[in-house]
Amino acid sequence: MTPTTTPTRLQRRYAVIGTGAIGGFYGAKLQQAGFDVHFLLNRDYQWVRDRGLVVESVNGDFTLPEVNAYQQPQKMPKCDVVIVALKTTANHLLPELLPPVVKENGVVVLLQNGLGAEEEVAQIVGSDRVMGGLCFICSNKIGPGHIRHSDYGAIELGDYDESYRARGITDRMQAIAGDFDRAGITILDSEDLLASRWKKLVWNIPFNGLSVILDAKTDALIADRATRSLAEDLMQEVVNGAAAHDRAIAPEFVQEMLDKTVKMKPYLTSMKLDYDRRQPLEIEAIFGNPLKKAAKVGVRLPKIETLYQQLVFLDRRNRR
Amino acid sequence: MTPTTTPTRLQRRYAVIGTGAIGGFYGAKLQQAGFDVHFLLNRDYQWVRDRGLVVESVNGDFTLPEVNAYQQPQKMPKCDVVIVALKTTANHLLPELLPPVVKENGVVVLLQNGLGAEEEVAQIVGSDRVMGGLCFICSNKIGPGHIRHSDYGAIELGDYDESYRARGITDRMQAIAGDFDRAGITILDSEDLLASRWKKLVWNIPFNGLSVILDAKTDALIADRATRSLAEDLMQEVVNGAAAHDRAIAPEFVQEMLDKTVKMKPYLTSMKLDYDRRQPLEIEAIFGNPLKKAAKVGVRLPKIETLYQQLVFLDRRNRR
Repeated sequence: MTPTTTPTRLQRRYAVIGTGAIGGFYGAKLQQAGFDVHFLLNRDYQWVRDRGLVVESVNGDFTLPEVNAYQQPQKMPKCDVVIVALKTTANHLLPELLPPVVKENGVVVLLQNGLGAEEEVAQIVGSDRVMGGLCFICSNKIGPGHIRHSDYGAIELGDYDESYRARGITDRMQAIAGDFDRAGITILDSEDLLASRWKKLVWNIPFNGLSVILDAKTDALIADRATRSLAEDLMQEVVNGAAAHDRAIAPEFVQEMLDKTVKMKPYLTSMKLDYDRRQPLEIEAIFGNPLKKAAKVGVRLPKIETLYQQLVFLDRRNRR
Repeated sequence: MTPTTTPTRLQRRYAVIGTGAIGGFYGAKLQQAGFDVHFLLNRDYQWVRDRGLVVESVNGDFTLPEVNAYQQPQKMPKCDVVIVALKTTANHLLPELLPPVVKENGVVVLLQNGLGAEEEVAQIVGSDRVMGGLCFICSNKIGPGHIRHSDYGAIELGDYDESYRARGITDRMQAIAGDFDRAGITILDSEDLLASRWKKLVWNIPFNGLSVILDAKTDALIADRATRSLAEDLMQEVVNGAAAHDRAIAPEFVQEMLDKTVKMKPYLTSMKLDYDRRQPLEIEAIFGNPLKKAAKVGVRLPKIETLYQQLVFLDRRNRR
């Protein structure tokens, strides 16, 4: 993996923890490209073991009649790259799920929303074995082993260092990017994972939160002066939170995100989809952890905190 | 009206502008006690002119088969005391409604929620002809001319002076208190109307706002840690807003309001009732004006502002 190794291509072995809309899609693409992929499943285990995976994609449909499906991580082979594509609300399971699957010099790639999960995983596998990816994709699981990919697909990939120190572009990032490229997936390099995660929150915090609290799609929220202005205030608080961690987000970026939302097709956010399915909301990853991080350096984000408090109430009631 | 006048009782003539749950109840009590009362009505005019008013009250039911009912203020006699019991959302009508009804040395008493309406009325009738009252009452209009009074009933009455300067207890306050006393209504004296209005917002802002936004009753909001803590934060912002206008609210008062809410019967706030009936919400009086007043002296109340922005969106959608 260093510039001095022989140019023989290493065939990395991949694990996918959480074979849903995200993990199922990227894992299937990797297997289709010839990689050795091992899928951990829960509810859909039996179905996928028997019937494989079906991907309907804007870039072309395909079926994998046979996949390596597992219900227990202990039965999986050790892998070079372990993609975690669970909802962050299931991350309390990772201390059990990860150790059996990660090779000694392997790496865990967190394809998850929000902020802070890399730190949790670093506690489990060590801070030199974690990376993070931000998925820019519209993808849904529409049935067991059945993924519908409707738009986009790129992953912004960043390497992790203790306390989210910026790592720049590392060799292992480039190696994984090469694999994904072979599978037809665009990888965008992030030199600073924390900066990328804060930046993604600029959109995710207002629109995930308000779509649930106000039972509204993005078009309604951006069309009304009051909620547009609230979205802008929330975005500004995210910018303040990032700044408190020495991550500058350009002021024009807020305007860009608002303009982008105006032009978007009416969109139900992932948090709203979870809410409507009465599944747990990713409140801690998207709201709680950014608030905690900001508070730690003495910065209050009161409008984000208001949404957080409202969402905790709604989530609890929703799943009672 | 001054201590030097003869002790002959002045029989003040009353007008009630807005004959609903509040105006209908207090007006009927005054008429029942022998006062000359004139009611302005809109939708219920015909019904009340023909059939009078019915009051079901915890303190005893009664019927007034005949009342002085009007549909136009021009037809009403000039009155000494003009009680305004419209929702604040109808206050844009007051420049038309008030001038024909208020005697030259008469006074307007605003029995309304929130903050700021006295200033608007001062612009119409002069700042020396306005008072404000805060109603502590559970009362509902359950049909045309039909009021159900289920609990409490006191009014905290305060005299108004330009820019809400504290006026202390004035002679005309005492005179009106005497009339209400005769009608069986307790009047609590407020020496400082602005202080009283801020103080009432301590409860009204969190619970009116959150009950609509989260579709919840008071018991659910106070039972959940997240919304209880949000309510407390909102209360603290109200205290900050009051402090910015040199009105000190004791810190224990916040705790007292929280404790009181724990002990209350599950309660649908007036704003939630309006919302469920698709009527306009009193957002400006309860949220917008306090925010503007605080902003004017350079104080931000960001959690209250968040609720304001959310409510404006919900109210607009609700009445589309």
